[in-house]
Amino acid sequence: MGSFGLSANNITHGSSFSADLEPKSFSDESKAVIDFIADYYKNIEKHPVQSKVEPGYLSARLPDTAPHSPESLDDILKDVTDCILPGLTHWQSPNFFGYFQANASTAGFLGERLCSGFNVVGFNWLASPVATELESIVMDWMGKMLKLPSSFLFSGTGGVVLHGSTCESLVCTLAAARDKALEKLGGGFDNITKLIVYASDQTHFALQKSAKLIGIPPANFRPLRTSFSTEFSLSPDTVRAAVEDDIKSGYVPLYLCATVGTTGAGAVDPIEELGKIANEYKLWLHIDAAYAGSACICPEYRHYLNGVELADSISLNPHKWFLTNMDCGCLWVKHPRFLVDSLSTKSDIMRNRSRASNTSTNAAPVIDYKDWQIALSRRFKALKLWTVVRKHGYSGLMYHIRSDVSMAKRFEAMVAKDERFEIVVPRKFALVCFRLKPKRESEGSELNRKLVDALNGSGRAFLTQAMLGGVYVIRCSIGTTLTQDRHVDDLWKLIQEKADRLLSLQEPEHASR
Amino acid sequence: MGSFGLSANNITHGSSFSADLEPKSFSDESKAVIDFIADYYKNIEKHPVQSKVEPGYLSARLPDTAPHSPESLDDILKDVTDCILPGLTHWQSPNFFGYFQANASTAGFLGERLCSGFNVVGFNWLASPVATELESIVMDWMGKMLKLPSSFLFSGTGGVVLHGSTCESLVCTLAAARDKALEKLGGGFDNITKLIVYASDQTHFALQKSAKLIGIPPANFRPLRTSFSTEFSLSPDTVRAAVEDDIKSGYVPLYLCATVGTTGAGAVDPIEELGKIANEYKLWLHIDAAYAGSACICPEYRHYLNGVELADSISLNPHKWFLTNMDCGCLWVKHPRFLVDSLSTKSDIMRNRSRASNTSTNAAPVIDYKDWQIALSRRFKALKLWTVVRKHGYSGLMYHIRSDVSMAKRFEAMVAKDERFEIVVPRKFALVCFRLKPKRESEGSELNRKLVDALNGSGRAFLTQAMLGGVYVIRCSIGTTLTQDRHVDDLWKLIQEKADRLLSLQEPEHASR
Repeated sequence: MGSFGLSANNITHGSSFSADLEPKSFSDESKAVIDFIADYYKNIEKHPVQSKVEPGYLSARLPDTAPHSPESLDDILKDVTDCILPGLTHWQSPNFFGYFQANASTAGFLGERLCSGFNVVGFNWLASPVATELESIVMDWMGKMLKLPSSFLFSGTGGVVLHGSTCESLVCTLAAARDKALEKLGGGFDNITKLIVYASDQTHFALQKSAKLIGIPPANFRPLRTSFSTEFSLSPDTVRAAVEDDIKSGYVPLYLCATVGTTGAGAVDPIEELGKIANEYKLWLHIDAAYAGSACICPEYRHYLNGVELADSISLNPHKWFLTNMDCGCLWVKHPRFLVDSLSTKSDIMRNRSRASNTSTNAAPVIDYKDWQIALSRRFKALKLWTVVRKHGYSGLMYHIRSDVSMAKRFEAMVAKDERFEIVVPRKFALVCFRLKPKRESEGSELNRKLVDALNGSGRAFLTQAMLGGVYVIRCSIGTTLTQDRHVDDLWKLIQEKADRLLSLQEPEHASR
Repeated sequence: MGSFGLSANNITHGSSFSADLEPKSFSDESKAVIDFIADYYKNIEKHPVQSKVEPGYLSARLPDTAPHSPESLDDILKDVTDCILPGLTHWQSPNFFGYFQANASTAGFLGERLCSGFNVVGFNWLASPVATELESIVMDWMGKMLKLPSSFLFSGTGGVVLHGSTCESLVCTLAAARDKALEKLGGGFDNITKLIVYASDQTHFALQKSAKLIGIPPANFRPLRTSFSTEFSLSPDTVRAAVEDDIKSGYVPLYLCATVGTTGAGAVDPIEELGKIANEYKLWLHIDAAYAGSACICPEYRHYLNGVELADSISLNPHKWFLTNMDCGCLWVKHPRFLVDSLSTKSDIMRNRSRASNTSTNAAPVIDYKDWQIALSRRFKALKLWTVVRKHGYSGLMYHIRSDVSMAKRFEAMVAKDERFEIVVPRKFALVCFRLKPKRESEGSELNRKLVDALNGSGRAFLTQAMLGGVYVIRCSIGTTLTQDRHVDDLWKLIQEKADRLLSLQEPEHASR
């Protein structure tokens, strides 16, 4: 690490603050941070994957007030090493198999550099035209890779926006559906308590939170039961019965969320059949493809999206399995007007040259993305996604998905061969749900919880758990960018080692295999 | 620019995708982007500040589908130069005086690098303990610089969270206030249509949008009138009268938003008097200090926050005037429980070791920030704010504010000396609202709109406008990091030049000064 303390402390405070962003020191210091991060990736396997710190550790290491005088980058990076790194759970470690991956890539990092280097705020077209236009273009690219119908694309009749998260997409589409329904019902917001939201009990809890956030009473959220019999996918019959019941009781069915790749088990809801029901009862159908949507760029997975033409909106997070550093969420909508009707605001300060002067009927309309999202301000995230897509290419992105799935298959095969274990639900993508078979079912949770704690406590891997139909399962989600076959093999060895120990302590008859 | 095409194209696709993030190529390519951005800053004044492109320009320059094969960084950066730069409105240009600034800094950029380099997702404590703990610590630093009472700090009895925007803070505090009120009223969400939200007509439109988003009927939003007589600050008498009226009509006053530094005029609402009314009528008082809150770290501006102890929450955006690259928004709340009650969700997958194992009464409680915000996922933004505060220090940050205010005073003095112009409302911070005096009041809007268009059309500066009490004013917001006295002087020369021309065309008697 070079010594940049001097340039940081010696800012000449003249008549302005402009010594900051001075190209030479900007460049030198930025490169020092690049070296630091490159070194972090180089040595990432040396850190325990899950942080071992205790709650409150950091307040003992850092002062409780801001420094009065400027500090050098050297001092800051020293504290990153000494104080920050021990408190990280290393999501980019090749031994991270928890939750869903947030896979970074060199391209994602480069795109972020460009985005925060320009640091523009493209809330409307005028505020930075390219931020709006590139977003429209790259999102059409994404839609075409997913073979979405043109009813979702700008080049067709739909529209697309980059959000920060699936939650934001849910809040915005729920609000659009709500306002459309309230308008149709007449009587204003009084009818809000009649509106009902449907999803499977495997749907990400973000939906329930989002529905409540937009004023749908919590009792109007219907988490419909799934089970092992459908591999935790939502049964169309269950949806129809629930909708009919609600209609009989005077409620108004509003919104159905179907998931492609649920958080717990990677389950896929039957889009086509659900779409038909949604259309029949005029429900807004949203497809949450946050995780597994990325896989659908490969022809062999595209069938999971069959029926998407019946949906009103679909979301997918490139910051999960599409090599795009946090944050980046895609939302396609069939009728952008409903979004804009619900979320738009007028302000003199936002007068848009191109919109205001569009008196000619031939003028191209412009998009003001502030009316497509929750916040006014927005980063130029499209630049990041564009960099990722170009730098990998469609072929490279498919290779990336297939490579992860191939490693998941490798892991699944190893688990399946060991009779002490079982695959709890069939694998669809790169998530393997398994467990150590308990001698008595009542001991299953305790046994597998201990195994997860032993694995994570070792610092050599990180996995998380889910409850599926009352069964505690261990989730192995494969997808960090640095993960290779050898890490999967090491993980399996570690699992066996911990299982041996656990079983030998608990059940002597299990000790010898 | 070095040639990195080779390393980008020659990824060896082995059994995994792990050639990505390989430290050497990561470092080389990242440094090429750093050089590119440093070069951008060096030449930033050569670009027209406001983009000159026409709507749809980009689709003519970029392909309409993603490339099949990987492309090199060189090719991408060439397109950034040829296609992206012309479409940018340059927010970091020293000649950008529009909206409010989004001032980037070297420190903000470095912090972003670290944040996206680690790319962790700290939705709960366990998922990366330091992401939660550093956020709590640095936000207490911020609170102490602002001399907020301990009732807002973690080290006191309050709580703090980093959001992406003020809108997010408004949505979350509105939802918390709503749910608290609905619980008190009993009867569930049926009472949502009784709840009333108050603010001045100068309040950012984000409040109206947020209130509608959480299900408050648009008719229940009270934008209370302000005028030149109070310099567009909200009169406590007006609030009291509106609240009394609503109570008489059977409504339930819910939430009052006071602004420190309104978007239009930089007005400051009287916090202390509004706080007393809010407490008397049990309204949730939120202080939106998105822009001018940053100034309040200087003792000479702190009085604008007097009475803050009477508020329930306060928000401020370091991504505006605090040298922190997008995005970064601070929210302090007096009773975190209300936020968490409204926004929390339970999920087996989120089981938190430290929370789950907190059987000892002495164990430090942990914060799960997913329950303090809209989304589940979150970036490690605290690392960025921490880098900014350390690298500038409290003294450097105050210097930065004072330097911008000093330039605003310089500009204000020049405008005031030219009798063809007038300062429309007194300046408080670094925003100057002025206009060219029209011969007839009815011509004021047209005349000043033409002036703004002429200034922005020149490419040499960028300013935006606002309507204040029916008067069209030009806003000069000083605060980009690179702006120096000479840019302010050049701006004034440009304004005079364009005004000369405009007046000579319109009103011959104005032509000679």
